[in-house]
Amino acid sequence: MTRQKTYNTFSKHGDVSMRMYDIIKTKREGGQLSDAEIKFFINGFTDGTIPDYQASALLMAICINGMNDRETSVLTKAMIASGDTIDLSRFGRLSADKHSTGGVGDKTSIIVAPTVAALGGKVAKMSGRGLGHTGGTVDKLESIPGYRVSLSDDEFLSQADKVGVAIIGQTADLTPADKKLYALRDVTATIDSIPLIASSIMSKKIAAGSENIVLDVKYGSGAFMKTPEDAVLLAEKMVDIGKRFNRHTAALISDMNTPLGTEIGNSLEVKEAVGVLKGEVRNDLRDVSISLAGKMVSLIFGTSEEEGSRRAAEAIDNGSAYEKMLEWVSAQGGDISYIKDTSKFPMAKITHEIKATESGYISFTDAELIGTASTLLGAGRKNKGDPIDHSAGISMFKKRGDRVDIGDTVMLLHTNDESSLKSAEELCSGAIKYSEEVPPFVPHIYKTVE
Amino acid sequence: MTRQKTYNTFSKHGDVSMRMYDIIKTKREGGQLSDAEIKFFINGFTDGTIPDYQASALLMAICINGMNDRETSVLTKAMIASGDTIDLSRFGRLSADKHSTGGVGDKTSIIVAPTVAALGGKVAKMSGRGLGHTGGTVDKLESIPGYRVSLSDDEFLSQADKVGVAIIGQTADLTPADKKLYALRDVTATIDSIPLIASSIMSKKIAAGSENIVLDVKYGSGAFMKTPEDAVLLAEKMVDIGKRFNRHTAALISDMNTPLGTEIGNSLEVKEAVGVLKGEVRNDLRDVSISLAGKMVSLIFGTSEEEGSRRAAEAIDNGSAYEKMLEWVSAQGGDISYIKDTSKFPMAKITHEIKATESGYISFTDAELIGTASTLLGAGRKNKGDPIDHSAGISMFKKRGDRVDIGDTVMLLHTNDESSLKSAEELCSGAIKYSEEVPPFVPHIYKTVE
Repeated sequence: MTRQKTYNTFSKHGDVSMRMYDIIKTKREGGQLSDAEIKFFINGFTDGTIPDYQASALLMAICINGMNDRETSVLTKAMIASGDTIDLSRFGRLSADKHSTGGVGDKTSIIVAPTVAALGGKVAKMSGRGLGHTGGTVDKLESIPGYRVSLSDDEFLSQADKVGVAIIGQTADLTPADKKLYALRDVTATIDSIPLIASSIMSKKIAAGSENIVLDVKYGSGAFMKTPEDAVLLAEKMVDIGKRFNRHTAALISDMNTPLGTEIGNSLEVKEAVGVLKGEVRNDLRDVSISLAGKMVSLIFGTSEEEGSRRAAEAIDNGSAYEKMLEWVSAQGGDISYIKDTSKFPMAKITHEIKATESGYISFTDAELIGTASTLLGAGRKNKGDPIDHSAGISMFKKRGDRVDIGDTVMLLHTNDESSLKSAEELCSGAIKYSEEVPPFVPHIYKTVE
Repeated sequence: MTRQKTYNTFSKHGDVSMRMYDIIKTKREGGQLSDAEIKFFINGFTDGTIPDYQASALLMAICINGMNDRETSVLTKAMIASGDTIDLSRFGRLSADKHSTGGVGDKTSIIVAPTVAALGGKVAKMSGRGLGHTGGTVDKLESIPGYRVSLSDDEFLSQADKVGVAIIGQTADLTPADKKLYALRDVTATIDSIPLIASSIMSKKIAAGSENIVLDVKYGSGAFMKTPEDAVLLAEKMVDIGKRFNRHTAALISDMNTPLGTEIGNSLEVKEAVGVLKGEVRNDLRDVSISLAGKMVSLIFGTSEEEGSRRAAEAIDNGSAYEKMLEWVSAQGGDISYIKDTSKFPMAKITHEIKATESGYISFTDAELIGTASTLLGAGRKNKGDPIDHSAGISMFKKRGDRVDIGDTVMLLHTNDESSLKSAEELCSGAIKYSEEVPPFVPHIYKTVE
């Protein structure tokens, strides 16, 4: 090996005396990186002049030694500058986006976007695909026959203008630095860092152009952040970044120890979301969706959080949010007969019941294990690019706080792959805990950070 | 990018459930790695199934979070197992090796090896080349016309047997894992870690087969370790490893704020070493060499340190060490007429004096700056594989504690490359500090660790 420490001394990026070696060393020793050093790293890593092995050493040093608010904000800015940005200025203050840090059974975007649009907001949103035990909105929407997850820039913006909602997949041109960095972090155990997570999320959200950004920062077994305290730290960092970029930004800290709602899996989740919009489903999913939509409405129109939530609940209750969903899905090519009659969604061929093994109260349903089981059943991917089975997943008949007797059905597994049943069943059975007492109440929303 | 965390799940190295990702994560979180995990890492990294970017993330986590004695010893063992080892059992308890952590003007091996051999020890030694501001014994010996730094295994062992000394370059077959790891550490700012330095050095020393190992652990501006306290920590770690492998191991902590002896540069250093063996040079180089040789003798024969040093001084004073050098160099193909008459070594064409800019006492001569200047003059390499100029270097007429008047010559630069003079002169002038008072005494040897 003849690699040199001076490898990128004479980079095309500005200061010829800057070396990646010294940048790594500074962070390793717990120092702060200058604005120029952070830009040098992101530019050089994106164009390949800084090799992966130097980048991963720096990422690990950042994970362990941290980054202050200035460094995190500069990192965010450098990642935004690495690609295209979307100009939503035509919508003035009306543009609004939401982002969830990822959970199990989290189909709130499908409810929140038409609700906010029904109230006058413009939701021009890019969503992700599922990976690991968490789902992705784009995968869920693809279970609607005809729904187009790729639109041209013009189609995307004019639909958001006309209908108030457009939800598409991430385009390849947004924050390429973040994409490349995330792929490296994913294989080097350097995901789990508040400044790196915050800058990754916020670079995408800011590049995506909305004036108002509401973050759903989840904590619990099914989330990156295991405790509400850590979730608050991440939320504070993201809200700080948003404000530095002059975006109205707020975060709700929400519980992800238990899957959200009752359905996990792509078409199953669309059906539940439609149920909320039709007023048929009134559960934690509805509550969290109203909180998120309410917060977006309050940022857009400058109202109180309570007034925002009141309007959001009203838009659901009076059917205007449901009508907006039909308009949106139809505009984006989806067959709305499936929305009108969700029994049209194909069901998986095999179902299997998970029964209560004790009598008492359900005290815990581990979201991470259930999410992993759902992936095994076919609802998610083990590796990027794997196909998914839109009908696979899990229905939760009983959740935390529910009373059960031995033999009651707690969950129903749906799959077309019989070989997956045994492992999924083991995971799900292991995910349930029972108690003799009613478990203490946990609010869906722990707190708001803004 | 489609890299997977599961990349090396199904490695050919044992446990199929082991993932590099989890190993990195454990160390990142400050945990301890199991023996199997460390072996998995070293084997996979050596054979290329674990990519550089995962290795560098782990190395950074080790640098910041450390390794305990067990982990360091297992890492050493895994690196030894990655290549060949040398069997010196034919020498029984007589085999002895020394290692210096690297310094400026450090030519002790050339003195110590024949001294120990003259007293009955067997020094079958592999030495390194210089890189950066520090020199390497192999480069120095190559300045002797005809000296063969590569011998076959048979030649090497039979010369050590017959003469008592053989010094050759590192062979490619010893600790390949360490070579590959060091190359990666060198470009990712992960050199500076006591467990990584200790295991790197000790893996080479243990693979090289000697029963007795004396480590010269240097501290100061010209050394890796800047303080004697850090040097002691490194020494303790290395001595611990040596003992775990049943080698008699001891370390001397020696001062490297100031270059050792008066000469820096390859043939210049050989001449000074020969001067010590001829009894003509009596300075710090002689003192440190006697301490090191004495320690080796005391380990071999089980005598006290004082008795070892007494015998070493005697071997130098009675000429037997010098005779042994002639025998050794001659056996290894070197032209001993250069040893007998060192004025035969070609001198550099250009010399340049560095004069005192103040009157008073020299209080400091920065070894790192002077070593760097010597490299610029042609005595060292900027990059691996660069040619070197054996005649280039620096002679120090005045050292720490010496009294000077303005205009006195402090150093003499030797080079064949006029273009290097200006930078070297600046470095050397900047390396000298003056004081009005006699600077406090600093012992050559700070302490012994064993």
